[in-house]
Amino acid sequence: MNFEDRLNNYIGLINTQLLSYLNCEKGHNGTLIESMKYSLFAGGKRLRPVLALSSYNLFGNDIGEILPYACALEMIHTYSLIHDDLPSMDNDNYRRGKLTNHKVYGEGIAILAGDGLLNYSFEIMLENAFKQKELYLHVRSIKEIANAAGINGMIAGQVADLESENKIIDKKILEYIHLNKTAALITASLKIGAIIGKASEADIECMKQIGLNLGLAFQIKDDILDIMGDENKLGKNIGSDIDKHKSTYPTLFGLEASVAYVRELTENANSLLSRYGDRSGFLLELSNHLASREF
Amino acid sequence: MNFEDRLNNYIGLINTQLLSYLNCEKGHNGTLIESMKYSLFAGGKRLRPVLALSSYNLFGNDIGEILPYACALEMIHTYSLIHDDLPSMDNDNYRRGKLTNHKVYGEGIAILAGDGLLNYSFEIMLENAFKQKELYLHVRSIKEIANAAGINGMIAGQVADLESENKIIDKKILEYIHLNKTAALITASLKIGAIIGKASEADIECMKQIGLNLGLAFQIKDDILDIMGDENKLGKNIGSDIDKHKSTYPTLFGLEASVAYVRELTENANSLLSRYGDRSGFLLELSNHLASREF
Repeated sequence: MNFEDRLNNYIGLINTQLLSYLNCEKGHNGTLIESMKYSLFAGGKRLRPVLALSSYNLFGNDIGEILPYACALEMIHTYSLIHDDLPSMDNDNYRRGKLTNHKVYGEGIAILAGDGLLNYSFEIMLENAFKQKELYLHVRSIKEIANAAGINGMIAGQVADLESENKIIDKKILEYIHLNKTAALITASLKIGAIIGKASEADIECMKQIGLNLGLAFQIKDDILDIMGDENKLGKNIGSDIDKHKSTYPTLFGLEASVAYVRELTENANSLLSRYGDRSGFLLELSNHLASREF
Repeated sequence: MNFEDRLNNYIGLINTQLLSYLNCEKGHNGTLIESMKYSLFAGGKRLRPVLALSSYNLFGNDIGEILPYACALEMIHTYSLIHDDLPSMDNDNYRRGKLTNHKVYGEGIAILAGDGLLNYSFEIMLENAFKQKELYLHVRSIKEIANAAGINGMIAGQVADLESENKIIDKKILEYIHLNKTAALITASLKIGAIIGKASEADIECMKQIGLNLGLAFQIKDDILDIMGDENKLGKNIGSDIDKHKSTYPTLFGLEASVAYVRELTENANSLLSRYGDRSGFLLELSNHLASREF
């Protein structure tokens, strides 16, 4: 299967499973579920679940094992975007060309939709783990995701980001923000693929290192696109970081150094991937694709 | 040990453990941790963790087993209050006589403090479960808490509550709101005490029934106090439900019927508790104490 076909195959599996989880309306939570679904199906790239699936496929051979965790990762990512977009945070009206959750449902429901997605992600993972014989592996994976999403991971990055607005920050804080806000969950995606796939500790560590490189590269590429991207392809206005006086890698170090750094990080990831030979073909292409993407 | 001493003993254990969990500042998450701590130590009654501990004590004899879950319950309750108080929800400036989280830290940090507490509660529970031999019991308990807090539990109740503002609602929806918004987490507290204490399925079910009765009684008592309570003792203004045109049991059915219903629910709980004889003395006193409390 070529890269595009396999990518679409993964995304199809993820979307079908996500949809089945969202068919869970009961009692008086219809608006809540609708708003959760709205943001979950607002055109996300499904990067984190795709990474989990493709990492799993290096080691395991029953993709159904990893799907619940892949979906949980997408739910956590989506909740973080809904809360991020709120007026008291980034105050964004559009994301991927569509109105943000609070512009459609109001702030109260948007906050609850975010809370709901975060909580539901744990419900799904625990429900799945509960049915497994090898409970240990599954609890380890859920813990990995919780830590990556938490107050020493994604949320910490979001707080540091919020506190850095309208400030010139140094490279150290910038990398702290990127590593926590973006790379932590991307790293967890690759790691849990390996854990559920019963990879060795060395392979789990290798997936972690790949995640850190890809996660940083992904965020810096995002910030480059915010300066020189095509608004039609991106589905949002460019220049928002500059408008918000937000320090990013390109605003601090320039475009040329940023492009070079994305290339370096991508090469680090690719070099780590090369040890898996042909099996890692898809992840290698994905890594290159992320570095050269236009949206 | 008399009731007051045992209650203070439980609260002391819970506060010490909560404080140890909040000594977790790392990197640039200082403001986040501070705001989480602010709301966690803003004078809560610790009802849910006390219920978990006292339920556990009917069946088990190593209270350390239940403490992490008790603390997680308090964190989840606190996150729900922080988000509830936000301008787009109940828009409250004071709670228990102290400024609400967003009035001190701003809305952005308050939303993240809530997210942080919810996520951290799972981190704590999973970290604890991961060290246990009988993983199954622990995963079951975490799942119980997740379901109670989630989109078919507490969050569903909050959405229905939000959607019922400025509307006359019927008894069915009112009970749906109470059962989900309040009773679900109270019920989970009692249930996980039994699960971790290795109680029989019959005892776990009994704890559930006690929780449903106590949870409903607790909410209706709250709504009665909002009409006829003493503002100094409550630490907040009374009459807020009437001001917000919120339907509650007493606004729909009158004070007399509400007081009688609280008594009936409390008696149901007490009658279920009586099967545990002397061992349930503390829970019986707590149940009566909740029904007659003035704050």
